Amino acid sequence: MTMSKYVISLGGNALGTDTKSQKDLLKHVSKAILPLIKENHDIVIVHGNGPQVGMINLAFSESKSTPLMPFAECGAMSQGYIGFHIQNAILNELNKENINREVVTLVTQVLVDKDDIGFMHPTKPIGSFYSKEEAEILEKQEGYQMVEDAGRGYRRVVASPKPIDVLEKTSLLALLEKHHIVISGGGGGIPVIRTNDGYQGVDAVIDKDFASAKIAEIIDADALIILTAVDHVYLNFNEPNQLKLEKIKVLELESLIKENHFKKGSMLPKVEACLSFVKASKHKAIIASLDQAYDAIVHHKGTEILPD
Amino acid sequence: MTMSKYVISLGGNALGTDTKSQKDLLKHVSKAILPLIKENHDIVIVHGNGPQVGMINLAFSESKSTPLMPFAECGAMSQGYIGFHIQNAILNELNKENINREVVTLVTQVLVDKDDIGFMHPTKPIGSFYSKEEAEILEKQEGYQMVEDAGRGYRRVVASPKPIDVLEKTSLLALLEKHHIVISGGGGGIPVIRTNDGYQGVDAVIDKDFASAKIAEIIDADALIILTAVDHVYLNFNEPNQLKLEKIKVLELESLIKENHFKKGSMLPKVEACLSFVKASKHKAIIASLDQAYDAIVHHKGTEILPD
Repeated sequence: MTMSKYVISLGGNALGTDTKSQKDLLKHVSKAILPLIKENHDIVIVHGNGPQVGMINLAFSESKSTPLMPFAECGAMSQGYIGFHIQNAILNELNKENINREVVTLVTQVLVDKDDIGFMHPTKPIGSFYSKEEAEILEKQEGYQMVEDAGRGYRRVVASPKPIDVLEKTSLLALLEKHHIVISGGGGGIPVIRTNDGYQGVDAVIDKDFASAKIAEIIDADALIILTAVDHVYLNFNEPNQLKLEKIKVLELESLIKENHFKKGSMLPKVEACLSFVKASKHKAIIASLDQAYDAIVHHKGTEILPD
Repeated sequence: MTMSKYVISLGGNALGTDTKSQKDLLKHVSKAILPLIKENHDIVIVHGNGPQVGMINLAFSESKSTPLMPFAECGAMSQGYIGFHIQNAILNELNKENINREVVTLVTQVLVDKDDIGFMHPTKPIGSFYSKEEAEILEKQEGYQMVEDAGRGYRRVVASPKPIDVLEKTSLLALLEKHHIVISGGGGGIPVIRTNDGYQGVDAVIDKDFASAKIAEIIDADALIILTAVDHVYLNFNEPNQLKLEKIKVLELESLIKENHFKKGSMLPKVEACLSFVKASKHKAIIASLDQAYDAIVHHKGTEILPD
């Protein structure tokens, strides 16, 4: 088997909310990825940060003595926090096996378009729940956009713009050249827009699967592997006519999307991210469960999205 | 002038506590460092994190809904947060000048010895102030060591062990080879010890000047530059017999240390860090004010510590 380059996208829910559970879960993640490292493949890990950045945001909102922390900065903190745990967990597994490869996290800014349609209609709920009265104060004082969230209270919504570029991409490429395992674009990356004063962080959340697809394109990955809670993409999931997708080509998948087969905020962004990578690169993308990380590559487990 | 490698150590107090002030201060820092970048020198920036990690720690202690966050993890968050601001600020200055160099932060673990004498006698106060009763509860429930701090209340103290190695050093070297500007070892690095289960984060604070000295040694820097609030090291500072040190050699500086000329927790760790680098490398170290960053190198401003 020749050496290949893979981008692995890990869900924020695979990481745990508190420090202890996160460390335990990451041992499991490291063991799942280890066989690919052992075969000398180059690997970039992009992780989600939903629960973790929520926790960081919540700490700053609830604390009386600290200022409210903008969302871009909370994302940067989550990259440091989760990146530390991932690089530590993988390094410890490598050391047990006497594998001499370095694992490192890059604090990563991801460029988005300030005119992205996402900024017109923010839809991504983040952070704490508030009462109607608190929500109105936040709208007035902080300029937040607040929406009622499924009867559970009011939450802030921010934009989820598409990633255009990764500002630290040549660092990423330099480290891959040396076959280091790199954690980059955590939480979808710290979203920045281009202004007359330079790049500025914005309150937004880039979908981590789209960020993974962009990173996979930049490094010219042989495959984008999105690891999630299910072993395959299904049509009519959990219904009598449930259908497992094993291999599917771009055009076919595009028709299924048009037929509304995939849920917004769940499988839809994953299949769309895969499509964007496969169309740009003519390489494959895979959606599989965490434990299938190796088998997805070696034994074609999971759902493979292939160019036409 | 030939191209050289410099490690620049920036005080946490040069960074600001809230997001807005930190961004403003970092514009200033970037402009101070810019002339060195323009002359194509290789630069690693090591920053302090005292006020910032204090703020992060405080947010998690005061928030009712989030777990207490261990100090190593707070340090990792501060690396993400401050690193993002530094790399963004410098990149924006470079873009204004059409300089095409990348700036990136490495989440950095720094190895310390679990038998370091620092762990026997923790002396570094961190985080919030507590009442005597609260302090007793924290001692019992969390195993913290608490001390009364100058009449202001009780604070937790942690060890300040010496840095032994940087786990991500080959990444740092790979990025320097490409002439990227690298932010590494923020806050002195995330302290880890070696255990039977691998490297583990510990509640400790590595002095950022000692971490800078270790990093300068690892990259074989031509000079370690510690930027601080004063323009030189002084003897009898602010007294009638005040004496400015312009150039001083190792043996001479060691005698001054023995004569207790330098304050613990202030100038002493800086001169000791310089000494450790100069003795290990036979290169020079400089202590100067932020605005002298360029002049310190080019016009011998600041205090130069030289090998014998």
